[in-house]
Amino acid sequence: MTLLFKVPDERASAWKALFAQHAADIPVRFWPDIGDPAQVRYFAAWQPPADLYDRFPQLQVVFATSAGVDQFDLAHVPGSVSVVRMLDPGIAQGIIEYTGFAVLALHRQMPTYLQQQREGKWAIHPLLEAGKRRVGVMGLGNLGQAALNALRPFGFALSGWSRTLKTLPGVHCYGGREQLPDFLGSCDILLCLLPLTADTAGILNAQTFAALPAGASLINLGRGGHLVESDLLAALDSGHLAHAIVDVLEEEPPRSDHPFLSHPNIWLTPHIGAMTDPHSAFQVLLDNIRRHQRGEPMVGLVEPGTGY
Amino acid sequence: MTLLFKVPDERASAWKALFAQHAADIPVRFWPDIGDPAQVRYFAAWQPPADLYDRFPQLQVVFATSAGVDQFDLAHVPGSVSVVRMLDPGIAQGIIEYTGFAVLALHRQMPTYLQQQREGKWAIHPLLEAGKRRVGVMGLGNLGQAALNALRPFGFALSGWSRTLKTLPGVHCYGGREQLPDFLGSCDILLCLLPLTADTAGILNAQTFAALPAGASLINLGRGGHLVESDLLAALDSGHLAHAIVDVLEEEPPRSDHPFLSHPNIWLTPHIGAMTDPHSAFQVLLDNIRRHQRGEPMVGLVEPGTGY
Repeated sequence: MTLLFKVPDERASAWKALFAQHAADIPVRFWPDIGDPAQVRYFAAWQPPADLYDRFPQLQVVFATSAGVDQFDLAHVPGSVSVVRMLDPGIAQGIIEYTGFAVLALHRQMPTYLQQQREGKWAIHPLLEAGKRRVGVMGLGNLGQAALNALRPFGFALSGWSRTLKTLPGVHCYGGREQLPDFLGSCDILLCLLPLTADTAGILNAQTFAALPAGASLINLGRGGHLVESDLLAALDSGHLAHAIVDVLEEEPPRSDHPFLSHPNIWLTPHIGAMTDPHSAFQVLLDNIRRHQRGEPMVGLVEPGTGY
Repeated sequence: MTLLFKVPDERASAWKALFAQHAADIPVRFWPDIGDPAQVRYFAAWQPPADLYDRFPQLQVVFATSAGVDQFDLAHVPGSVSVVRMLDPGIAQGIIEYTGFAVLALHRQMPTYLQQQREGKWAIHPLLEAGKRRVGVMGLGNLGQAALNALRPFGFALSGWSRTLKTLPGVHCYGGREQLPDFLGSCDILLCLLPLTADTAGILNAQTFAALPAGASLINLGRGGHLVESDLLAALDSGHLAHAIVDVLEEEPPRSDHPFLSHPNIWLTPHIGAMTDPHSAFQVLLDNIRRHQRGEPMVGLVEPGTGY
């Protein structure tokens, strides 16, 4: 019942030490040292190999080290394999911090002010009070709710959209495709924290941007696959959208001539919104392995039908 | 008992409407329409004229429309005149928003990442957890405490320094000049929210920066007079300090060749940290005028000895 771990080299030593100290009974191997493939029962990774399900015939559980599991080709998971996403409090903390930064930056027109600095300009623009700034979050799971909770003390007018309608205190909630236009029409700042599924791929597109109020801004903390990059460029260049803060791309790292790198109205960060912290993530992973060993339900089990 | 109001033209109409609607019994004049100088009992402004105290012999109260009152030449206020600073919740809200933006930006290395974007670089740097990021606030009055309260939910390691030692929940407090070096040595991010007084002028200087840990960053939301600008440039250029986010300058607006405008490690904004909102500030001002009319103590009365 070996656990095979595929993790970037620079992070392997932290994980090895944690297993050695706290779970010496669990045989762990680190990619590419896979040993006998037939011994592998558990596999943990952010990015799996393409032939994962063929290569390890006795595989029982795949643990994502990320909150999203779109990289695990959910349409082709054998029925005998469970996929578990990482519900690490360290991931939620990272999302909270990035959300606070990005929403406050857009609310206070920081992209404009920092552009002015580079142009040697000193000009003050009217300030909208937080209670009139409408911030909408797409995706109301673990991370979307954490983001809304972090924004609440600043006094923003909060709304949220999810596939099925939810009820959250102090948040105007919308549900389903039929309520998406109304939700979008009420967002000065739109934050995407959706899981990437067949339903949500490309959801940040021209039609979505057209439904936002003129002058709105976008934050994409979901996946690159949510965003039709050329549609964002068109919406910014037409002036309909004011600014975008983007942490994820369709192709990472981007080509050196990717238009987001040099666009004056895009702040681009290299997929750093949330980074799994080995120390907090280890506890979550170990707890799930123990649950599986005892035959109890694991936390973060992905439903193949919904993709999250 | 005329109130004379000196406010930029674009804001005068909002104030006029508020007085007309809610305080029609108070005679109000707007600069430069001063009328009979001997009728002026109350004067309200952000920037007073140089001859304020000579020009209005019956002046009783000066109301700053800002939280700071350094512009009112406190050393030469006649004994018959009270100076009142603006304790507007709108100012605290502005400071909270800017603080959240600036601390989270520095914590998450956004100046580095946005610089990387401009260089076409995609590189991820280790993330320090919030509980290990030491954020220190200089000045623990109304605004310093509001800033600390806004930072608390993110889990930072908080400390504070003030002239006289205070006790704040969850904040390691230091007091007086003798505890300043210990305070500074514990700050990865130093935020200045001090009042500008004879004691605090130039307090952000080479000696202060040398006492900060290597790689620390500065946020100046106080006044330009707190900062020795050439000392900041030297500390950044030596690499001892990593970054500065600066909202106030000694001379505003700056000369077109001011070195902060083009410095790669400085984010400069045009004194927008807090902007008085007429609607919330009006209530505070009117309440103080009513208190003065009834002979009750006003809120925000400045002690000439301390300067705040």
